[in-house]
Amino acid sequence: MTKDSYLVGLIGAGIGPSLSPALHEREADRQGLRYLYRLIDIDTLGVRPEAVGDLVRAARDLGYDGLNITHPCKQLVIDHLDALAPQAEALGAVNTIVFEDGRATGHNTDVTGFAASFARGLPDVPLERVVQLGAGGAGAAVAHATLTLGAGQVTVVDALADRAADLAAALNRHFGAGRATAATPDRLAELLDRADGVVHATPTGMAAHPGLPFAAALLRPGLWVAEVVYRPLETELLRTARASGCATLDGGGMAVFQAADAFRLFTGREPDTARMLRDIGELAGAVTAAN
Amino acid sequence: MTKDSYLVGLIGAGIGPSLSPALHEREADRQGLRYLYRLIDIDTLGVRPEAVGDLVRAARDLGYDGLNITHPCKQLVIDHLDALAPQAEALGAVNTIVFEDGRATGHNTDVTGFAASFARGLPDVPLERVVQLGAGGAGAAVAHATLTLGAGQVTVVDALADRAADLAAALNRHFGAGRATAATPDRLAELLDRADGVVHATPTGMAAHPGLPFAAALLRPGLWVAEVVYRPLETELLRTARASGCATLDGGGMAVFQAADAFRLFTGREPDTARMLRDIGELAGAVTAAN
Repeated sequence: MTKDSYLVGLIGAGIGPSLSPALHEREADRQGLRYLYRLIDIDTLGVRPEAVGDLVRAARDLGYDGLNITHPCKQLVIDHLDALAPQAEALGAVNTIVFEDGRATGHNTDVTGFAASFARGLPDVPLERVVQLGAGGAGAAVAHATLTLGAGQVTVVDALADRAADLAAALNRHFGAGRATAATPDRLAELLDRADGVVHATPTGMAAHPGLPFAAALLRPGLWVAEVVYRPLETELLRTARASGCATLDGGGMAVFQAADAFRLFTGREPDTARMLRDIGELAGAVTAAN
Repeated sequence: MTKDSYLVGLIGAGIGPSLSPALHEREADRQGLRYLYRLIDIDTLGVRPEAVGDLVRAARDLGYDGLNITHPCKQLVIDHLDALAPQAEALGAVNTIVFEDGRATGHNTDVTGFAASFARGLPDVPLERVVQLGAGGAGAAVAHATLTLGAGQVTVVDALADRAADLAAALNRHFGAGRATAATPDRLAELLDRADGVVHATPTGMAAHPGLPFAAALLRPGLWVAEVVYRPLETELLRTARASGCATLDGGGMAVFQAADAFRLFTGREPDTARMLRDIGELAGAVTAAN
């Protein structure tokens, strides 16, 4: 077996439309690697999310070099790993596993991916007061990323008040008291009025959930807007924000940099993220056109 | 995921030196396929041969398109399959599994592979009386192949008299009474004197078992000699047989055609066996040089 041969995959539910196989395999092809990215869909297999441990062990035994993990297994998988990287441990969620010498180590490239995308796309924006919409899995990852990037204070807004409060509490435990607070959407006007920028981490704007996550009137020049949704790349929020004079960041960057970080962990090779960003434009566009 | 992407592997014990990954991947590369061939060694995993059923199910769930199976799992695996191709059923041994729509079908390309190699390499030799040395797993497969090719009678010779008798009985059940008989090596001189040709299916001649499987004096012009050993390709038996005026067939053809038949089953595409025969010359040579 050559050393330039890599077998990786994604475990999750309903992952058929994932762009990860194409993102990874295109970059691997350009680097001349033998690289196969398989989708392991627990819905298709008819197994419960708790089966993730068995699937991870089987993948290790069957020659997989690593795995990506997505909803609903990112937390469940932790009990089945031998070690955790710091971001994954802090977040309590794993989206990438690397097998080495029979040991499974968990990483979280959602955190590092959003941080890399933000640093590249909005390099000089103020970060003193950040409002974040959405306290789900993606929200937890991007809140860790913005606080790691040096955000002064993040206000986590979610219609589920408990979920927002739990995430804020977890962030304060990790980053220090006072760095995060929780709020419900009725306070958005007041919060955005005083904010430097807003991170959007809910499904609103995806093909299945069209529309704006909050009133267009709350957007104003000087407020930056970072989007997590990447299908479509151009959400109604981004379009409206740009028209309102906001600096914007689309979700494609996070999708690319989380994949690039996983690719680096799997192969030890440096991915060309400029090429991968061109890929996601093509791939996310193609998916939108197909819908 | 593209349709041109194939994940296959080999389950067995002590398979590290297998040439199958290189044989399959070289041909797939020439056909422009994304193709990964993994070795799943039960010795390395520290599991018993009986674990083959769990490994096969896990491979199916984790996106494998098919598997090769080798010693000591070719018989054990049968209980874990959904269907068997005729050669595999007749032989009671499976060396190739194809997954399709969640179902696992067992095939035996050792039989078809030896038959194809023989038909190509010794197309016009008489087949009325064939002597075969070795009644192990490879012996069973090649005896099925020579009888399928139309051999009148095969005498199976093995130092383990029971093993030879059991194989002869199984062959007679499948091909009709009188097609196979069993003998012990002390009768070889007499048997070869009356034979059209001899098939050698013991490990003698491999790097770890050098030498001749029987006295050189038993070789004579007009007797053909077919070898199963392919590492080295040029065994002492083949060298001696050619010097004695025998037509010969090396073991590389069987190795190539069993791989080619598996490749066809996995992909539905026609392998170029001429190119694969050149590969095995290079690969088996390289392995010999490394020993």
